Amino acid sequence: MSSPAPWPALRVTYFVTASNSADLDARVESLLLEQTVELPRKALRDPFVLENIVGRLVSVEALDAPRHRVVIDFPIIATADDPAQFLNVLFGNSSIQEHVQLADIELPTDWPGRRNALPGPQFGTAGIRKIVGVPERALTSTALKPIGLSTEQIAFLCGLFARAGIDIIKDDHGLANHSFHPFQDRVRACQKAVREANRASGRQTIYAPNLIGTPTAVLEQLKFAQEEGVGAVMVAPMLLGMPFMAEIVAKHAKVPILGHPSFGGATRILPELLYGKLFPLYGADATIFANFGGRFSYSKETCGKLARALTQPAIPGLIPTLPMPAGGIKYQQVADVLSFYGREVILLIGGGLYEAGEDAALRARAEEFVRHVADFAPL
Amino acid sequence: MSSPAPWPALRVTYFVTASNSADLDARVESLLLEQTVELPRKALRDPFVLENIVGRLVSVEALDAPRHRVVIDFPIIATADDPAQFLNVLFGNSSIQEHVQLADIELPTDWPGRRNALPGPQFGTAGIRKIVGVPERALTSTALKPIGLSTEQIAFLCGLFARAGIDIIKDDHGLANHSFHPFQDRVRACQKAVREANRASGRQTIYAPNLIGTPTAVLEQLKFAQEEGVGAVMVAPMLLGMPFMAEIVAKHAKVPILGHPSFGGATRILPELLYGKLFPLYGADATIFANFGGRFSYSKETCGKLARALTQPAIPGLIPTLPMPAGGIKYQQVADVLSFYGREVILLIGGGLYEAGEDAALRARAEEFVRHVADFAPL
Repeated sequence: MSSPAPWPALRVTYFVTASNSADLDARVESLLLEQTVELPRKALRDPFVLENIVGRLVSVEALDAPRHRVVIDFPIIATADDPAQFLNVLFGNSSIQEHVQLADIELPTDWPGRRNALPGPQFGTAGIRKIVGVPERALTSTALKPIGLSTEQIAFLCGLFARAGIDIIKDDHGLANHSFHPFQDRVRACQKAVREANRASGRQTIYAPNLIGTPTAVLEQLKFAQEEGVGAVMVAPMLLGMPFMAEIVAKHAKVPILGHPSFGGATRILPELLYGKLFPLYGADATIFANFGGRFSYSKETCGKLARALTQPAIPGLIPTLPMPAGGIKYQQVADVLSFYGREVILLIGGGLYEAGEDAALRARAEEFVRHVADFAPL
Repeated sequence: MSSPAPWPALRVTYFVTASNSADLDARVESLLLEQTVELPRKALRDPFVLENIVGRLVSVEALDAPRHRVVIDFPIIATADDPAQFLNVLFGNSSIQEHVQLADIELPTDWPGRRNALPGPQFGTAGIRKIVGVPERALTSTALKPIGLSTEQIAFLCGLFARAGIDIIKDDHGLANHSFHPFQDRVRACQKAVREANRASGRQTIYAPNLIGTPTAVLEQLKFAQEEGVGAVMVAPMLLGMPFMAEIVAKHAKVPILGHPSFGGATRILPELLYGKLFPLYGADATIFANFGGRFSYSKETCGKLARALTQPAIPGLIPTLPMPAGGIKYQQVADVLSFYGREVILLIGGGLYEAGEDAALRARAEEFVRHVADFAPL
């Protein structure tokens, strides 16, 4: 194990599956490196990086076989006090490794940049209780649905629930800016229904609309909803982006945020769909993915399907884009990899070059990589 | 099976695990409903919704046991032509169900709103090849790393790789706006290195910086990078939010986008961490999650840990927030659920109320729900 970390550390617990100790050692070493430097240890030559960026192993403990609890300290400085980079350090590339599960975190006590990265809730339990006027008992909530009702029907339900005494009436997470119930009409009508019910009952029921769309759309929705006086808003951070939720909270929200779990299990999308179709549909011109035979777990068949989905899009109107296989390709394997993917590809080799050494050696290997590719398919 | 869809359909293929035909039927019915109306069929009374919003089963086919290929048509109108809502329809709540895997999609041929939802790549293979001046052979790429080098060291590597003839030199996805290599300094220095190498070599090597952070930070980075003349940019859409990438492409990017897979396997985060700690750290005041015993797969133990993480945050400086268990709670179970969670909770019941019927019946059940909660813990 490494010596105790000399810097403020983000302590992360992973569950790592390994059937023997050699596998376990390799997977622990991979975790120590993958989340920050993403290079093999022998390619790390800068003393500052070795001391201050690479993770340090705290403990390894056997759980129910073949699982192990692995605790690692990462330098908080690696997060750049940024909400997106914080996730990279926690579970960026390792999230793609099937044998790893992210289990827990502990933040460092001395982290001046924490508020920049992670705003934390601004209202919390006490704030929500105050807004709905319920100091002690459990709170009640229901959802307005389904998609496809008219604005009037939705507002009618909202009034009904408010008169019934529900504390928090939220949009279903599937209520977007649909033509049947456009966001602004819906918010105005639901707020009116809640106001009227509260006036009659003396309660403080609130309506929480679902914010959904691109950042521009969501911020417009939030502004409108707050002007209408909503008591809270709902956001699905895995859908909209966790860093975006952090920005909403830090800069824009004046009401409590209800977090929704939608899209929380996105890994159960086949890689050939997530990377091969969804990434280009959302606009990627080239898509990086884990090549077969490297340190990730995709099969050759999966990579082939994924690459074909990018280069020969089956979706009409989608232009061809470039696969960028990566993650452990060696420069010596260029011909093999090209035989597999053909020439419509960007070969991405990182560690396989850096392992060569510094400056002259690195330059020579990079040139060799370039030459291998040129030789394989001369112009 | 349903009759063929009378509307433009988003055709979605799921792999569904089920050990017998009753399970399979139940899981297929759940998929048909979960992605749009999120209500039991018997709670659907509006004829427009039944005809035009609920999914229609296209086919079920046995794969390797116990997996089945289930193909469903969803009305494209349910996506509201919105990139976030599109993901909701594809794999919103169902992503949290362990027996379901999202396998494939087909877009409708007649979908006028498609460009609003999904911009698609703007440059593609041809655009990238033109920018790097390589019409035919495979392209080469490497990454600048590790985090923690100085700006000068990173720029030196960039120049080295450019002189070696690499086509695309990208930032490592972990290079954020770190103090060691601030974004603007790094982009300026790397662009200079690439320009000088290209001037000497006659090549068209490009540098692609990593855009990372909240939407505001990312758009500032993009603007700066484009003004400096970068040839492409890299984005990790699962980290930043898929809808945000769509907006970047549709409104802001003038260069190709390289999509990075970081955070792509986020489901392998334990629920008690993702929902219990990360959602509040990113600012949620109340967090909705799948209650035990409902239609999702979390155990009572997981839900207990998750709720405790929210109500009694172990992370210093984090204020208590409210768990919102949901997903199949019946109004009759209120006392049981409250016995488990205590009063620091928002009980979210949707379908369990709607099942009562319309108007008067719904109102009566909502009132009963409210009464059950009040009775359990009177003020």
